[in-house]
Amino acid sequence: MADPATISPATLLKDELDIVIPTIRNLDFLEMWRPFFQPYHLIIVQDGDPSKAIKVPEGFDYELYNRNDINRILGPKASCISFKDSACRCFGYMVSKKKYIYTIDDDCFVAKDPSGKDINALEQHIKNLLSPSTPFFFNTLYDPYRAGADFVRGYPFSLREGVPTAVSHGLWLNIPDYDAPTQLVKPLERNTRYVDAVMTIPKGTLFPMCGMNLAFDRELIGPAMYFGLMGDGQPIGRYDDMWAGWCTKVICDHLGWGVKTGLPYIWHSKASNPFVNLRKEYKGIYWQEELIPFFQSVTLPKDCTSVQKCYIEIANQVKAKLGKVDDYFNKLADAMVTWIEAWDELNPSGASKSSDLPNGPSK
Amino acid sequence: MADPATISPATLLKDELDIVIPTIRNLDFLEMWRPFFQPYHLIIVQDGDPSKAIKVPEGFDYELYNRNDINRILGPKASCISFKDSACRCFGYMVSKKKYIYTIDDDCFVAKDPSGKDINALEQHIKNLLSPSTPFFFNTLYDPYRAGADFVRGYPFSLREGVPTAVSHGLWLNIPDYDAPTQLVKPLERNTRYVDAVMTIPKGTLFPMCGMNLAFDRELIGPAMYFGLMGDGQPIGRYDDMWAGWCTKVICDHLGWGVKTGLPYIWHSKASNPFVNLRKEYKGIYWQEELIPFFQSVTLPKDCTSVQKCYIEIANQVKAKLGKVDDYFNKLADAMVTWIEAWDELNPSGASKSSDLPNGPSK
Repeated sequence: MADPATISPATLLKDELDIVIPTIRNLDFLEMWRPFFQPYHLIIVQDGDPSKAIKVPEGFDYELYNRNDINRILGPKASCISFKDSACRCFGYMVSKKKYIYTIDDDCFVAKDPSGKDINALEQHIKNLLSPSTPFFFNTLYDPYRAGADFVRGYPFSLREGVPTAVSHGLWLNIPDYDAPTQLVKPLERNTRYVDAVMTIPKGTLFPMCGMNLAFDRELIGPAMYFGLMGDGQPIGRYDDMWAGWCTKVICDHLGWGVKTGLPYIWHSKASNPFVNLRKEYKGIYWQEELIPFFQSVTLPKDCTSVQKCYIEIANQVKAKLGKVDDYFNKLADAMVTWIEAWDELNPSGASKSSDLPNGPSK
Repeated sequence: MADPATISPATLLKDELDIVIPTIRNLDFLEMWRPFFQPYHLIIVQDGDPSKAIKVPEGFDYELYNRNDINRILGPKASCISFKDSACRCFGYMVSKKKYIYTIDDDCFVAKDPSGKDINALEQHIKNLLSPSTPFFFNTLYDPYRAGADFVRGYPFSLREGVPTAVSHGLWLNIPDYDAPTQLVKPLERNTRYVDAVMTIPKGTLFPMCGMNLAFDRELIGPAMYFGLMGDGQPIGRYDDMWAGWCTKVICDHLGWGVKTGLPYIWHSKASNPFVNLRKEYKGIYWQEELIPFFQSVTLPKDCTSVQKCYIEIANQVKAKLGKVDDYFNKLADAMVTWIEAWDELNPSGASKSSDLPNGPSK
């Protein structure tokens, strides 16, 4: 096995990774990311009013989709893509032709490591994705594939090859990703702790996946990265990434793939309005008490051998078991099925890397 | 709930914690620990030749047990305590009268944090033990009870109280805790990465528990901290802490208690001889491939409501399922039962805090 510590991944994956950015404003934040992002292709998903022009700094290679594009490309299936919510970003995952996706919010800037050096978040995500995961047993020195680390005494040798990594979940310095009640109670709390670790989230354990600074292997897990129905016309918001994370983790556990969390950090510049967030979240805060036990008890039958099959099975179970919590989950289950249909339409089996979109982007 | 970040625990637990040290040599290493350990009571378990005198630096409050003491106190049940192996340390857990135990190897010194400050390992362990654990859902910002941290968005509120912490597993700078094959392959590897985190090992996940720098709540989990049959007359060594860790984790998961790992670090000064280690370990390296699946599949019936009942049930399952791997596991299962009998004899129910030993220590 190649030593992942010696991989120089940033240059390797230039043609295999898209950066997906949902936004409602001009993308000035890209200036700070220029040294790291400019070699890559960007997919910008414009949220809200499609008549508004979004300015992208000179020199970036990008395609931009607004609501009109989404409607034109997906037709009636566009109903599964959220409107007026950053959940719309998952449309970008669907139209990408690349193996890997990195998605980042437009209020996230380059963070510095404890030595004061700018952190190339994308490079760290690529390292995370290219090295295996270890979901079946905990390694107390964290990522055993990192330079200077290994598996500790007592770690079974049969598990040291690891499994493919599907997801790399990065963290945030400055403004932590808190819910509205915690924001309200701790308005001044800032995350200043740089934890120099990457770890695999063990099999069978759920986690709160944040979409702010997230990378994944689209070919492996892409169809599970649906960000749900949020925003305009929906009873909740700010659970888009959580929903995707719970579905993704259950499917990764079933198919034997890994999910990592930890490095890299980005600098999250601005806390969103806690009062607005509370309005978006309050049903979710109540519902998640039922959602977590649901996802903890989901079991997928053996014949669910693809992400799509797993995802449809979860949609069926959502309808059967969560429909009684609120009718919203019936709608969501239908949208999950629509999402898979749309995914498969845009990504015909075996040809996803080379197939053309039915309609081009608006750029 | 009191904010654990504001607890000043070092002074709080002076009369509630024993430090257990297994050794074969003079305890000069205590000089470096004097500022942190001197207020506490030490239980020294002398390994090997009981006629050898062990020198303890002036000013420490201690009791010392050698093999003759162990034989006298336990009688025929002394057979469950390993001889010529640091696994004998668990005798110290049994004779302690305190609520908490910290155990440390005599080749472990005070480490420095990245700012250059000496790390009070014991204080950090106490903080870990006094604040709850979160085994049911992963918090991406690590210990949510630490100052400057909290539960992130998407973490169910019903789980935020946490559960009692039974074990605090600390780590090692300098010489990492590698097995013999890894030592042989990477003789120069040193652990220089200070990861500033404490985390709960999720429910259902096993880990390699190292006994070098370990604290636990003896009243909660003490009877599970049996370090097995190692050393003289036994076919393996260096699996004492692993065995204790696997049993402990399964029981904590069953009874709803938490196991933490991460901070504090100690400075592990000297790598043990990899050739000697290989001889001790090689059967374990083979056997652990069967042990891990065994412990991953152990289920404890509902009527196992105490650690003792859980432990006896595991002993029965060891005999039933691992006896065929090697006759050693039949002996070990018997020793596990003997250990519990001896524990209960020295710690009569409800009186463990005040009962006197049948025989005093040799100091």
